[in-house]
Amino acid sequence: MNELHLARLIEFLRFPSVSTTPAHQGDMRRCAEWLGAELRAMGLSVEIAPTAGHPVVLACNAHRSERRTVMIYGHYDVQPVDPIALWTTPPFEPRVENGIVYARGATDNKGQILAHVLGMAETIQRAGELPLNVILLIEGEEEIGSPHLEEFLVARRDELRCDVIAISDTGMVAPKVPTFTYGLRGIVTVEVRVSGPATDLHSGIFGGAVANPVTVLARLIATLHDAHGRIVVEGFHDDVTPLQQWERDAWARLPINDAEIQRLTGVPALFGEEGYSAIERTWARPTAEVNGIGGGFQGEGTKTVIAREAFAKLSFRLVPEQRPDQVRAAVERHFKKHCPPSVHLQIDHGHSGEPYLTDPQSAFGLAAQRALRRTFDNDLALIREGGSIPIVNTFKRVLGVETLLLGLALPDCKAHAPNENFPLENFYAGIQLNQALLEELGA
Amino acid sequence: MNELHLARLIEFLRFPSVSTTPAHQGDMRRCAEWLGAELRAMGLSVEIAPTAGHPVVLACNAHRSERRTVMIYGHYDVQPVDPIALWTTPPFEPRVENGIVYARGATDNKGQILAHVLGMAETIQRAGELPLNVILLIEGEEEIGSPHLEEFLVARRDELRCDVIAISDTGMVAPKVPTFTYGLRGIVTVEVRVSGPATDLHSGIFGGAVANPVTVLARLIATLHDAHGRIVVEGFHDDVTPLQQWERDAWARLPINDAEIQRLTGVPALFGEEGYSAIERTWARPTAEVNGIGGGFQGEGTKTVIAREAFAKLSFRLVPEQRPDQVRAAVERHFKKHCPPSVHLQIDHGHSGEPYLTDPQSAFGLAAQRALRRTFDNDLALIREGGSIPIVNTFKRVLGVETLLLGLALPDCKAHAPNENFPLENFYAGIQLNQALLEELGA
Repeated sequence: MNELHLARLIEFLRFPSVSTTPAHQGDMRRCAEWLGAELRAMGLSVEIAPTAGHPVVLACNAHRSERRTVMIYGHYDVQPVDPIALWTTPPFEPRVENGIVYARGATDNKGQILAHVLGMAETIQRAGELPLNVILLIEGEEEIGSPHLEEFLVARRDELRCDVIAISDTGMVAPKVPTFTYGLRGIVTVEVRVSGPATDLHSGIFGGAVANPVTVLARLIATLHDAHGRIVVEGFHDDVTPLQQWERDAWARLPINDAEIQRLTGVPALFGEEGYSAIERTWARPTAEVNGIGGGFQGEGTKTVIAREAFAKLSFRLVPEQRPDQVRAAVERHFKKHCPPSVHLQIDHGHSGEPYLTDPQSAFGLAAQRALRRTFDNDLALIREGGSIPIVNTFKRVLGVETLLLGLALPDCKAHAPNENFPLENFYAGIQLNQALLEELGA
Repeated sequence: MNELHLARLIEFLRFPSVSTTPAHQGDMRRCAEWLGAELRAMGLSVEIAPTAGHPVVLACNAHRSERRTVMIYGHYDVQPVDPIALWTTPPFEPRVENGIVYARGATDNKGQILAHVLGMAETIQRAGELPLNVILLIEGEEEIGSPHLEEFLVARRDELRCDVIAISDTGMVAPKVPTFTYGLRGIVTVEVRVSGPATDLHSGIFGGAVANPVTVLARLIATLHDAHGRIVVEGFHDDVTPLQQWERDAWARLPINDAEIQRLTGVPALFGEEGYSAIERTWARPTAEVNGIGGGFQGEGTKTVIAREAFAKLSFRLVPEQRPDQVRAAVERHFKKHCPPSVHLQIDHGHSGEPYLTDPQSAFGLAAQRALRRTFDNDLALIREGGSIPIVNTFKRVLGVETLLLGLALPDCKAHAPNENFPLENFYAGIQLNQALLEELGA
């Protein structure tokens, strides 16, 4: 336990760096500058690099041509905090309780990226320098789909040349279990808006004669799945690679099962596509989820209106080899086909990202697994994950390198949810992991 | 045109007397007191009578036992104003343009009840007294289902004894067409809440393994109707009285048709139960409408969560002889039957009211129709309406009398919607109608 490290983490967590909210633009810049100052104090060359959106924090040690170069990627932006009422303490006033720090961004991704930063600081303090060339790229738009990162990578391709990339933004299957993630789901986001009447209508005067936009939207959402949880959008599954038997066997042996997923989520019963366990459903099967819905009167009391419009924010998680553009087209065709002529339908496409799959038996993959075993001294879990880190595909495309995913989040860290948290045990393990990783990759 | 009358109307409309919103409690009281002062100035006995909710304004002239007694009922409370952004000018800053006054409550019900008040004021000024005994009962909880009015009527049964009741809170089928309404729909309101996870979940980490409360709610809503707009809740139609042939014939001759309903609502196409015209659907067929829905992230941008809960506010319009308690039970059974075990379901029942049907050929009905013809000098329309005024059944049950519905709202007055308005022509006609009505009823 290092009080100075913890103090750094708490400072970092205090910035309300919500990238999706325009009002937080100043907080984003202040957060990037704080990070830049920390890195400069370690002796690294630092640039707060502007983009068309939020700035990228870029840092490197003195590179020597005979050494390998690793890029460590992370992000300093965080998810919004709603529903704010469900937080036990304010999301940007970090609280430490029973060895766990609670704050928005604690696990996703400030705690994990800061562990890398502090690991490097320890190495520099102890050894005078790092065992290989390091590029640290910490962006501010991961939670909104990294809209300007590709452009940035292309523009800086030469100075960002590296042999491999490491990211700690994924999870561990259970406490103290070193976890190497070799696959991620992709994502497609869509906003659907159904409108009908020119204005809100009195549901007594006009109810029965016009289509209710909320009802039409609900009926459209209900067409996405069959009663058994399988997506029934035509063409949606065309490019899905079936789950391999060796994966099903390996995952069945992991210290996580359906009962544990039910405990973690708190649902009265699990639900999902038939024929798959809960982790198979989340790691290797695609989804169609409504992330938000709104329409009509939501206040206290009653208001008997037929709303002029209603909207739903949807996201689809993709698995290899589904492609975002194909899925997007299938979803748009599906909604248009099912929408009745009594309403107007508007479909707006948001950010998207491809699914990812890498070979865990590559030389760098094996080096990362050695670093994980050294840090945790325990059996290693080889997994995929349900979340999306679209930029791993961008890295592959633009820089031509694979990404190592060495996550430190626990399943109940509540990323994206109220009371997000990160165990200090994992934070300190991350600081050790960084040092082991740089040694193994540099060896 | 009477500038003093208009000035009174504008003063009345300035009170933001939104009964459903606790923050407007003070405005409610001030509005009631303003009304009381107006009535006292006319020489009436006035009481601002407290209830467990908002006060009732009660006024009467000097009663004489040999005369008939008419009660005129109205309400000084109004609907909420959302969506506020769609108002051209602020809802509580009345604006007069091209002979139309725009404000929340202009038509529902302040314009119409004030026309009665000013009609009586004119009679008193001209004749010294009214031609029969009048009780004026103006409540402040109509828009929230009159939760305390029945108790009030029971407690005051003796002093509220009357021969007939008149209400102007319904509509005219078209401008200048005197309209007598002999039927109303009833209402049942329900709030449905679906919850699952203990907290909002990351839709990448857990998506696919748990039921999404928004999706489940949407699928429940989608079970209410078949594809042709017919309600398919078991037992829902059990007590529905079919529309009579004389009504279909009479309504087919009215100066309002499907094209006009489409124009009024602005929908791209009408939609409703097969086999009925738009006015038949709204006046004589029951409905199931979602008045509002909410769940998950509704802000700007994206947030890839599975919400812990979602809710919908529903209202069902009933026709004779459907009974609210039976419909409520059928709806609750329906939702429970269709809800999967992967979520929790909570159903909260709100206000309700029975449908109403009276005989247009009764002596008082014919007197009211004579007053309407005298006022408008035009063919009279005999209609039902789609809205609900539950207290007409309460009047019948507690006071034992029928209610005459002589409405002055036009179909595009936008009751309950942004830019609610009332033509001054109708306001002045209402002042004349009151005088003709009291004469015909007193004769």
